[in-house]
Amino acid sequence: MVDEGRRPLAGATLGKDRMEAFSDGVLAIAITLLVLDLAVRPPGSPLHQFLRAWPAYVAYLVAFLSIGAAWLAHNGLTDRMDRVDPLFLRLNLLFLLAVSFLPFPTRLVAEALERSTDWKRLGAVVFGLTMLVIRLLFAAMGRYARRGGLRHPREDDPDYQEAHKKFRGAAIAYVVSIAIGFVVPLVSILAYFAIAIFLVVPFRAVWGELFRKSSA
Amino acid sequence: MVDEGRRPLAGATLGKDRMEAFSDGVLAIAITLLVLDLAVRPPGSPLHQFLRAWPAYVAYLVAFLSIGAAWLAHNGLTDRMDRVDPLFLRLNLLFLLAVSFLPFPTRLVAEALERSTDWKRLGAVVFGLTMLVIRLLFAAMGRYARRGGLRHPREDDPDYQEAHKKFRGAAIAYVVSIAIGFVVPLVSILAYFAIAIFLVVPFRAVWGELFRKSSA
Amino acid sequence: MVDEGRRPLAGATLGKDRMEAFSDGVLAIAITLLVLDLAVRPPGSPLHQFLRAWPAYVAYLVAFLSIGAAWLAHNGLTDRMDRVDPLFLRLNLLFLLAVSFLPFPTRLVAEALERSTDWKRLGAVVFGLTMLVIRLLFAAMGRYARRGGLRHPREDDPDYQEAHKKFRGAAIAYVVSIAIGFVVPLVSILAYFAIAIFLVVPFRAVWGELFRKSSA
Amino acid sequence: MVDEGRRPLAGATLGKDRMEAFSDGVLAIAITLLVLDLAVRPPGSPLHQFLRAWPAYVAYLVAFLSIGAAWLAHNGLTDRMDRVDPLFLRLNLLFLLAVSFLPFPTRLVAEALERSTDWKRLGAVVFGLTMLVIRLLFAAMGRYARRGGLRHPREDDPDYQEAHKKFRGAAIAYVVSIAIGFVVPLVSILAYFAIAIFLVVPFRAVWGELFRKSSA
Repeated sequence: MVDEGRRPLAGATLGKDRMEAFSDGVLAIAITLLVLDLAVRPPGSPLHQFLRAWPAYVAYLVAFLSIGAAWLAHNGLTDRMDRVDPLFLRLNLLFLLAVSFLPFPTRLVAEALERSTDWKRLGAVVFGLTMLVIRLLFAAMGRYARRGGLRHPREDDPDYQEAHKKFRGAAIAYVVSIAIGFVVPLVSILAYFAIAIFLVVPFRAVWGELFRKSSA
Repeated sequence: MVDEGRRPLAGATLGKDRMEAFSDGVLAIAITLLVLDLAVRPPGSPLHQFLRAWPAYVAYLVAFLSIGAAWLAHNGLTDRMDRVDPLFLRLNLLFLLAVSFLPFPTRLVAEALERSTDWKRLGAVVFGLTMLVIRLLFAAMGRYARRGGLRHPREDDPDYQEAHKKFRGAAIAYVVSIAIGFVVPLVSILAYFAIAIFLVVPFRAVWGELFRKSSA
Repeated sequence: MVDEGRRPLAGATLGKDRMEAFSDGVLAIAITLLVLDLAVRPPGSPLHQFLRAWPAYVAYLVAFLSIGAAWLAHNGLTDRMDRVDPLFLRLNLLFLLAVSFLPFPTRLVAEALERSTDWKRLGAVVFGLTMLVIRLLFAAMGRYARRGGLRHPREDDPDYQEAHKKFRGAAIAYVVSIAIGFVVPLVSILAYFAIAIFLVVPFRAVWGELFRKSSA
Repeated sequence: MVDEGRRPLAGATLGKDRMEAFSDGVLAIAITLLVLDLAVRPPGSPLHQFLRAWPAYVAYLVAFLSIGAAWLAHNGLTDRMDRVDPLFLRLNLLFLLAVSFLPFPTRLVAEALERSTDWKRLGAVVFGLTMLVIRLLFAAMGRYARRGGLRHPREDDPDYQEAHKKFRGAAIAYVVSIAIGFVVPLVSILAYFAIAIFLVVPFRAVWGELFRKSSA
């Protein structure tokens, strides 16, 4: 890797730019395609049909926040990188594979919420496993970037520290939720919701915001 | 690389670039997915079937202009920002959640236009509420950016002033239209159309353009 | 427009960048969504069903090349622009509205090719009118950019000159094809194919390429 | 703005940027649309229905990796280019046409895997031909870029060399696989899987990584 230091930085940065653009594209599409699965559910009055589709709204919200959290994490990771290398691009591709697969388990969960426990179990486990794989691939990307010197060393940034700790917590939470999913799938779906909210809400920043407000 | 000591800002700008790229992606997809709901409506001659689909065209146009107005406003907001911070990224994510949800109420409106008043009421209210939420989240983003010093102070720009005033007007107009929607839903759907056109047409610029033309 | 010259160029360029990113997004999605309408057509052997879907392939190809030509033209126009202004952004939005509508007439044409003449007439006329509107909006954007001083003056570029002449020719060709579409719709669909190819093939560059090759 | 006299190059670079952005968009959408074809297959228990959809998963994986490989290759090609020209933009458009067509053969393969040999043959041959066309168009782009001086000469880069050799190998492998597809289509579908993995895995980098690890 020593002679890689001579690599013109412009070219390397371009590679990073396109990786970000492609990733933003895949994530944006995966997150926006979710709406195609929303539909009113007969029978009943219009309002009744609209409200009867609540499982689809729940699944939509969980999946949207989960992909949103993945985007935020991806953003946080590559923001600290100076360049990418061939292996990192492939890890990123696997990461995108897992994320772009998510609309399918989302549909499973949406349909499962009004079907038998067996369906709920299937939906809960497949959704959880997909999120766990996303999480593990992301960890692999972060580890590889750090080991390969692709990331410049400002890891004392508290926002980064919070994100790092959160994602380790999330991985454990997904494993536990999947295990729960085999027994009481509904609880694990609620857990995915909680994890997604936990990942997206920047507690430190919100805290700072509240503090700033009260001391102003 | 010597002046990389200024990096914090560069990094922050990168974050802004990706936020814009991701937002552009989600908005572009939401606006383009709308076409999937267009289809001729049997029975009748080809031309008759094509024209009978007018509710879908109206809904398509209203939604396209509404998302277009949201993009223009987003553009106007971030254009004046130097950087983003974790909280702003999350507010933006919620904003995108509301925008990417819009194709669903659009479908409701399209289908409602040829169904009972109950359906029209549902479509009109859900569409209006979604637009109002988009509007309020956008206001929250603007307020947060201003308070947090993320925006640089060129707010005397008359184009910006016009956009600002318009969006406050739009929020009120949406509240009124939703209220009307409970009683005469068709009127409120027409109102959404009018609001979208009002938001998209840059009256000041058009006026300037006409004036320049006549004085040339 | 004189005091607009004091406008920081960075901000103006950002606005242009996002307009391009958003336009690229909408055009890329519109061009890629076309594939969703491809499907084999029973009955018959697999190969027979595959080949029986030829109308969908023809419509796919015509629409892909037409949107591709629109992207190339958009690229050629904004490449010469230093900045954008509020009115230009709105014209661009209307342009995108027309382009993102195109998958619907494309579906009409694909279905019409194996239905009655009335269906072919509808498909041919609606597709042609959409292309004509795209063409006229594009002309309006070009004219506005030139009049408003948004474009810097290198219009002696022969590639630009060729594109300009081609697009004026295309507008006339679309008008003629639409008129033909009322009488013999199949001919006008073939004409759209020919126009799209005519717009996409860069005759001057191909000529130069062939010449360079033979003189090398 | 003083050194804007060099503008021709800046303009050309802009053209390259937009070509990359548009290509990233089309590739990202094509790769993400694949998920729309995933669905459980009745009858049976939930798990049974989920597993019965394995042909769709295989096709999804093969297509995702194949488009991913195309993106990596495109990235590698344009990364070394200083500018684009009109002909290159058109070649790129044809390349995108072939890539954005791929979801259709992918669906054919997914459906064929549980149907008669005739269907498998059709799926295998159409998928293989599409991949071969993508491959040949990509070779044409590379050759044109080299001949036209659009690419700057750092072809001694071993990563590039590996990519180049791999893609020549892939073209031959696709021709052989298509021929096999006429006789034993299932084998050729497995071959497409193997080729995609072969294209995506960066053997040289993995090797270097393993070597570095063991010598650290």
